[in-house]
Amino acid sequence: MAEPSRILITGGKVVNEDCSVISDVYIENGKIVEVGLNLQIPAGVRVIDATSKLVIPGGIDTHTHLDLAFMGTRSVDDFYIGTRAALAGGTTMVLDFSIPKKDTSLLEAYNSWRENADAKVCCDYSLHVAVTWWSDTVKKEMETLAKEKGVTSFKMFMAYKGVFMLTDAELHAAFSQCKEIGAIAQVHAENGDLIAEGAKKMLSLGITGPEGHELCRPEEVEAEATQRAITIASAVNCPLYVVHVMSKSAAKVVANARREGHVVFGEPIAAGLGLDGTHYWHQDWGHAAGFVMGPPLRPDPSTPGYLMDLLANDDLSVTGTDNCTFNVCQKALGKDDFTKIPNGVNGVEDRMSVIWEKGVHSGKMDENRFVAVTSSNAAKIFNFYPQKGRIAKGSDADVVIWDPTKTRKISAQTHHQAVDYNIFEGMECHGVPVVTISRGKVAYEDGVLNVTPGDGRFIHRKPFSEFVYKRIKQRDQVGQPTAVIRKPYEGKVSSV
Amino acid sequence: MAEPSRILITGGKVVNEDCSVISDVYIENGKIVEVGLNLQIPAGVRVIDATSKLVIPGGIDTHTHLDLAFMGTRSVDDFYIGTRAALAGGTTMVLDFSIPKKDTSLLEAYNSWRENADAKVCCDYSLHVAVTWWSDTVKKEMETLAKEKGVTSFKMFMAYKGVFMLTDAELHAAFSQCKEIGAIAQVHAENGDLIAEGAKKMLSLGITGPEGHELCRPEEVEAEATQRAITIASAVNCPLYVVHVMSKSAAKVVANARREGHVVFGEPIAAGLGLDGTHYWHQDWGHAAGFVMGPPLRPDPSTPGYLMDLLANDDLSVTGTDNCTFNVCQKALGKDDFTKIPNGVNGVEDRMSVIWEKGVHSGKMDENRFVAVTSSNAAKIFNFYPQKGRIAKGSDADVVIWDPTKTRKISAQTHHQAVDYNIFEGMECHGVPVVTISRGKVAYEDGVLNVTPGDGRFIHRKPFSEFVYKRIKQRDQVGQPTAVIRKPYEGKVSSV
Amino acid sequence: MAEPSRILITGGKVVNEDCSVISDVYIENGKIVEVGLNLQIPAGVRVIDATSKLVIPGGIDTHTHLDLAFMGTRSVDDFYIGTRAALAGGTTMVLDFSIPKKDTSLLEAYNSWRENADAKVCCDYSLHVAVTWWSDTVKKEMETLAKEKGVTSFKMFMAYKGVFMLTDAELHAAFSQCKEIGAIAQVHAENGDLIAEGAKKMLSLGITGPEGHELCRPEEVEAEATQRAITIASAVNCPLYVVHVMSKSAAKVVANARREGHVVFGEPIAAGLGLDGTHYWHQDWGHAAGFVMGPPLRPDPSTPGYLMDLLANDDLSVTGTDNCTFNVCQKALGKDDFTKIPNGVNGVEDRMSVIWEKGVHSGKMDENRFVAVTSSNAAKIFNFYPQKGRIAKGSDADVVIWDPTKTRKISAQTHHQAVDYNIFEGMECHGVPVVTISRGKVAYEDGVLNVTPGDGRFIHRKPFSEFVYKRIKQRDQVGQPTAVIRKPYEGKVSSV
Amino acid sequence: MAEPSRILITGGKVVNEDCSVISDVYIENGKIVEVGLNLQIPAGVRVIDATSKLVIPGGIDTHTHLDLAFMGTRSVDDFYIGTRAALAGGTTMVLDFSIPKKDTSLLEAYNSWRENADAKVCCDYSLHVAVTWWSDTVKKEMETLAKEKGVTSFKMFMAYKGVFMLTDAELHAAFSQCKEIGAIAQVHAENGDLIAEGAKKMLSLGITGPEGHELCRPEEVEAEATQRAITIASAVNCPLYVVHVMSKSAAKVVANARREGHVVFGEPIAAGLGLDGTHYWHQDWGHAAGFVMGPPLRPDPSTPGYLMDLLANDDLSVTGTDNCTFNVCQKALGKDDFTKIPNGVNGVEDRMSVIWEKGVHSGKMDENRFVAVTSSNAAKIFNFYPQKGRIAKGSDADVVIWDPTKTRKISAQTHHQAVDYNIFEGMECHGVPVVTISRGKVAYEDGVLNVTPGDGRFIHRKPFSEFVYKRIKQRDQVGQPTAVIRKPYEGKVSSV
Repeated sequence: MAEPSRILITGGKVVNEDCSVISDVYIENGKIVEVGLNLQIPAGVRVIDATSKLVIPGGIDTHTHLDLAFMGTRSVDDFYIGTRAALAGGTTMVLDFSIPKKDTSLLEAYNSWRENADAKVCCDYSLHVAVTWWSDTVKKEMETLAKEKGVTSFKMFMAYKGVFMLTDAELHAAFSQCKEIGAIAQVHAENGDLIAEGAKKMLSLGITGPEGHELCRPEEVEAEATQRAITIASAVNCPLYVVHVMSKSAAKVVANARREGHVVFGEPIAAGLGLDGTHYWHQDWGHAAGFVMGPPLRPDPSTPGYLMDLLANDDLSVTGTDNCTFNVCQKALGKDDFTKIPNGVNGVEDRMSVIWEKGVHSGKMDENRFVAVTSSNAAKIFNFYPQKGRIAKGSDADVVIWDPTKTRKISAQTHHQAVDYNIFEGMECHGVPVVTISRGKVAYEDGVLNVTPGDGRFIHRKPFSEFVYKRIKQRDQVGQPTAVIRKPYEGKVSSV
Repeated sequence: MAEPSRILITGGKVVNEDCSVISDVYIENGKIVEVGLNLQIPAGVRVIDATSKLVIPGGIDTHTHLDLAFMGTRSVDDFYIGTRAALAGGTTMVLDFSIPKKDTSLLEAYNSWRENADAKVCCDYSLHVAVTWWSDTVKKEMETLAKEKGVTSFKMFMAYKGVFMLTDAELHAAFSQCKEIGAIAQVHAENGDLIAEGAKKMLSLGITGPEGHELCRPEEVEAEATQRAITIASAVNCPLYVVHVMSKSAAKVVANARREGHVVFGEPIAAGLGLDGTHYWHQDWGHAAGFVMGPPLRPDPSTPGYLMDLLANDDLSVTGTDNCTFNVCQKALGKDDFTKIPNGVNGVEDRMSVIWEKGVHSGKMDENRFVAVTSSNAAKIFNFYPQKGRIAKGSDADVVIWDPTKTRKISAQTHHQAVDYNIFEGMECHGVPVVTISRGKVAYEDGVLNVTPGDGRFIHRKPFSEFVYKRIKQRDQVGQPTAVIRKPYEGKVSSV
Repeated sequence: MAEPSRILITGGKVVNEDCSVISDVYIENGKIVEVGLNLQIPAGVRVIDATSKLVIPGGIDTHTHLDLAFMGTRSVDDFYIGTRAALAGGTTMVLDFSIPKKDTSLLEAYNSWRENADAKVCCDYSLHVAVTWWSDTVKKEMETLAKEKGVTSFKMFMAYKGVFMLTDAELHAAFSQCKEIGAIAQVHAENGDLIAEGAKKMLSLGITGPEGHELCRPEEVEAEATQRAITIASAVNCPLYVVHVMSKSAAKVVANARREGHVVFGEPIAAGLGLDGTHYWHQDWGHAAGFVMGPPLRPDPSTPGYLMDLLANDDLSVTGTDNCTFNVCQKALGKDDFTKIPNGVNGVEDRMSVIWEKGVHSGKMDENRFVAVTSSNAAKIFNFYPQKGRIAKGSDADVVIWDPTKTRKISAQTHHQAVDYNIFEGMECHGVPVVTISRGKVAYEDGVLNVTPGDGRFIHRKPFSEFVYKRIKQRDQVGQPTAVIRKPYEGKVSSV
Repeated sequence: MAEPSRILITGGKVVNEDCSVISDVYIENGKIVEVGLNLQIPAGVRVIDATSKLVIPGGIDTHTHLDLAFMGTRSVDDFYIGTRAALAGGTTMVLDFSIPKKDTSLLEAYNSWRENADAKVCCDYSLHVAVTWWSDTVKKEMETLAKEKGVTSFKMFMAYKGVFMLTDAELHAAFSQCKEIGAIAQVHAENGDLIAEGAKKMLSLGITGPEGHELCRPEEVEAEATQRAITIASAVNCPLYVVHVMSKSAAKVVANARREGHVVFGEPIAAGLGLDGTHYWHQDWGHAAGFVMGPPLRPDPSTPGYLMDLLANDDLSVTGTDNCTFNVCQKALGKDDFTKIPNGVNGVEDRMSVIWEKGVHSGKMDENRFVAVTSSNAAKIFNFYPQKGRIAKGSDADVVIWDPTKTRKISAQTHHQAVDYNIFEGMECHGVPVVTISRGKVAYEDGVLNVTPGDGRFIHRKPFSEFVYKRIKQRDQVGQPTAVIRKPYEGKVSSV
């Protein structure tokens, strides 16, 4: 039976980032048509009762790596399984990264990702593109991507030396081009030189296990690169987005820069908000290896709470997952050498619940801030607000009915992802999606998924997001330095 | 001729705190009835063309003292002149303070303020009430005010020793009562003991001029009290609102507390955002005295820019003016002793333009953040959002058409306030209100005011503002400390 | 057999705060007569070989409460047992507090303490005096104490409401008097009002055990008072000394104030440098109660390391112990109500070893900084440097031979204190005093004490310590504010 | 007449870093032989009365560039004139930098500097060597310099792209080698890539004057590099010395790192402590160009006071000058392009007076801290303490008699340097050297110099300065990470 294209959600508390109000929501043809009470609705509409539940914009995961070939293997959640799991968790859109190999075309990478994803995605998605090397061609392709292909965010790596890492001069060039074409520059902020040296040192000390992964890239290495990226972006007056902020010190760098007026956004991820890095010291190798990701979780157990405080306070802005899953047997490629453990963890399914539990249930943020950090801010930064990220007339019908009182226990036994373990195993979470509506269709309801590969669409984004660029442009207009007007120097000049 | 009760604003860019969109706005009977394009509008409606202009929620001034008897004299802007000037500047609501004398009834003060204001106000208003002493009666009256009189914000003074100042124990009691009744606690945060001693010291050093006013209450005195108030509020888990944050160090205290998760809001004012305290050292006594207010403007010239950075970044939340105007001849009561200069400056008319110039034109914030800090956040904190502070269907028709490219030069020659000088004299501001609509009526247009005393209404507020109290309540539920379960101690006990 | 009055220590590494050098040390009649190699020494001198050991100035414990009547009982280490234990641990001087009851004479308290102590002390000592109330008499007695009695440090309490606590106005007066007479103001920095309210709250929640002690005085309460004390002292330009800095946040307040140029010194204590407050949650009541002191140890386990970092970096200056010991049966006075547990812990014997272990052995500080924080800085601040706190010609022969490689395990089984438990029980410490010389006499050697009550002397201190007051005086000379010179205001003056 | 080799200084206040004491000082054969009262002195000794004056260790300037070929010209103060001027100002030792061109031998540079300097210096000196490129040869030469040539400090440039600048990987290698050989790593901390881009940008905006010099290297560029250098040094556990800390933000980075326990030292210079960068906006090109140096002085006028506060508080440690003087006609090489203005200013003569005026006379530090930051700390860090930097038996007789009450006005008219202007022109300074004794000889007295080229000696320094390396070594011993002991992973391994 075909899903009805008309849905009326009644009696729920509609939660947007600015306030909450008891209201009905009427959906037609994939769009929200009306929000209010006592709506005039045609007959035959499917009615979903949301009484005593929240009606929130579908989650937007800003950071996934589905079906990614990486470190000699391939992540097991592909665009079908990954987006399906997303929907089960209340997320209705993901932003994935096209990552060209060094010296290869960005456009080709983009095309290849589109081809793979378009056919498989169960919810809407969009793409960031990575800039893994620098040349005039790269510069030109960035322009094409921004003007014609809907890509207005580019990630540069400060780590993965010899593979993806750019020099400072290249970062400056790439940021300048982002500014020129109205894109937002993204950085993976870790000092790749120090990681390379650190890894050598750990191995030389006989440290080959997963704890070596953290020990060779302590948080100073992340904080340093974050500061550097902000300084370079500031020199260019280019907006900056720091992906996966994982440590207190790096988060503080972002927060301080924002206080000083820098246009910078920090993205913590579900793993970092829910867990700490003591797992790397776990006695069981498989357990420890399961948490290996870059940047790593931090051993300081106060890290997750601190990141959540900053997220609650808008020092950090949005949340992703860096979902890039490998089974234990893949992790085992590094069983004798931590540098060979494929980096990545899960999160795309559990992000919403983890943030509700640690953020809202704990009292650190309210339901409105929850919506801001799980969808609205992402939509603003990446320039599809209020198309998504808001329950409002005219917006896409990506809607979740959320039960804040229900709980569930996260487990690999029950999750919808392909990966054979779950980093949040056993975590009891308040806050459960009971219905997920994607593009106006009920994709998930009471534990049952109803999806088809290709249900989702690529979201084509325009450059110069207002949320990001209004201040940038104004500063360019009023903030340019000017020369002092002087009489020419007419004294003696030394001969060289 | 009667003002048409139906207005269609066409072609403008409707600016709310979350985004801006080109849209028409249709107003009927004092309410916004529809926002969108291609609206179905009855004939005969007055149409105002807002093409290439911004359509923003009317400003809300969180802090005025109209017609206040203070320091042996009375502020010259009364509720008529003050609200009239507000409208000319794009502000459509003010929140004034009822201040009972020590040992007198809060309810009587409230009634007296209502009586005075209701007859005179040209725009909507509401009242905070000051708690200037402590007793069971005061406690009881606070409850009555919150439950029956629409007052859910109470200001406590940490300064004005012997007049309004409360002790720490009294602050604790007052904050506890605010929490109990769902109000927000406000503080004037300066250490009154140190000011009293400082004033004595300055006079003893022969410093009798306005510079003595700042010298005896340097910013440490403000920062200390701010920290103390936050600590006390935190002990009670009571939301706190720091009125007139005037210094970098006090603002930093607020910002840091927010990062740590405290529910605290800081209110800078137009004077502090636009000016610094070097004026107190001006050679002309009258000029210098004109800037005397408490807490004072700060000599550090980087203060206004710093406060604006924090306001832009949501470290500070809303803006008021502390508008409390005295003519120069009134200031002259303190011509031989700065402690006798009546404290207060203007701002109610110029706040919007000053913030636009220093905040938006400078590139520190965008137009959406401007709306947030000039109206939306105030409406949320004081619990009448989205009735006010948003251009949306169902909201009050307090609307301003704002021309961001137009400029005006502020001057006492041209302002609409009663006071005979203007602290912003000569400041050239981008950003000018061209039309101000209050309660659906055009109150100001192209420089002409069209108002009648009593046009405005008292806004009755409900307790337990969701914006303020959601986190507070949740923390009370999940964050209570619990006792360790132990076996009783059964050893020897010393005899006393 | 009488102790030889002439001692030659040979071959040791003499460690002073500025550097270390291999040198002999010759002692005669209680003084160091020569430091160098190849000294000309009379025959018959006792020679102590210190090869491969350190020769350091005897420790100075800045904060003890020996034989104190408090909370209905009396601390069990009296001046004999306490100073004897001090010597066994390498400490050769203690500074105790005379604490007059409210409304009683400071001079009488001083006399009573002198009488008690003079007869019993085994090492040199001095006295601080507490100012527990305020009046002209108190002011006058402070002057007498400073000018005639050798007391130039006065402690004011911001806690113990109703017992010792002063108001802000009284603190201002007391600090002003300290400044006048050349003393240093000391504060116990906790907000007593908040503690009183917090205690009520905890008891009302059914929390009666030792954890309630910490829960009702969280570290914000300490940080707030510290900030307030610094602000008041700064207003007076009076030097300030914060006793027992126990939390990260309070320590940060001190450190930041120092950066800004305030003349303020912070004193962490052995307990806070070696332990954290998780003990209060211990299942065994007796264990938990044993750690009760004010301010309490902090539950954040990173606290001791942080305090040590700041101590290493001269953000904190000196170390005491707050040694005030009660047996478990005395602690049991509060078995049903934590507010009745006598506050206090041990430390006078173990301070040196705990700081060596956690500070020097860990690599946070070097041996020279160890000397600075265990003796030299105390001697400078309290004005008996270089009489004590330095191994130099002319200094008192309070000398310790320290073995940095030896270890000992701290235990109540083996300690020399009267108290029947030890908060450091089981801690393995590198760094052991092998010989302690007090006033030129070997008081402790290879585990054996050789002391007599009354061996020590009261150290009479002079006001206006140069280390503390040089900057204060200079600022008074060059930093006074001055009046703006203006023509008189000649305009109209409003009539009142 | 030959200078007497025996001098008795009587009645002065001998000031060391730890305390001051009225004492005589007896000097013989270039050494201090005795310090004390009532000394037994041979007849015929020259007696200098220092009553009511201070007797301090001669100043040590940690940073000079005498006779340096740079930017197409040569600094005009050579080793004779420069050290002569130093003595006139109370400085008795300088540390200069040997700077090999890229790809040339460090040893040859060292030899060339020695040859030039040895013949000319009027006071003692030592050499740092710059590492301007990287190779195995460089690494080997560093070892030779440290083991055989008395050089234990090496400066690496993070700026001067294409000339001296090292990459992060090279910095890591150079720091590692410093650690290996017991040297201290020094950095010129500015981001050279950003400066290169910034300079292009300024020229493209038509900014060719000296203000462009600052605008293309704002303080963020300095702070970023400082943070990066500290992070790299920390990864290696290598001590770090940041030369010429010029901005508040960079100084704060150093201060924060020290709080966290990093072994890092910051060196402000006389120019930065006495002046701000508003001079670059001066209307007169010659004036503005005269202040061009790298990193530049900062436009924020609160910078010098802030740096002095941190210096007073031991957040910054020592003071140099970066003395590298060019006449105006040399500066004029960049009259049409600020990038061609030779970088450098004076300071070697005026440093002591500027620091006394701004630091001691202002009340920010006392006379003892003055000694610490002008000589003792330099001697400790660079490993010739207490040979220099202390008035004590056995120390070198580099002694200054300082009159703290006398004043002088700095001027190019009266200074002893070769350069034809003075950046401190017109500054009135309290604190004047009345006698400078170098190597036991009166070199300057009452305004008259009595020096001969070659009077000074090269100070050969040993590696592994205790002051710097004690903590480093201890951390290496106790702080190494260790591997988790685990059973081998025996599960399935994915095939690649």
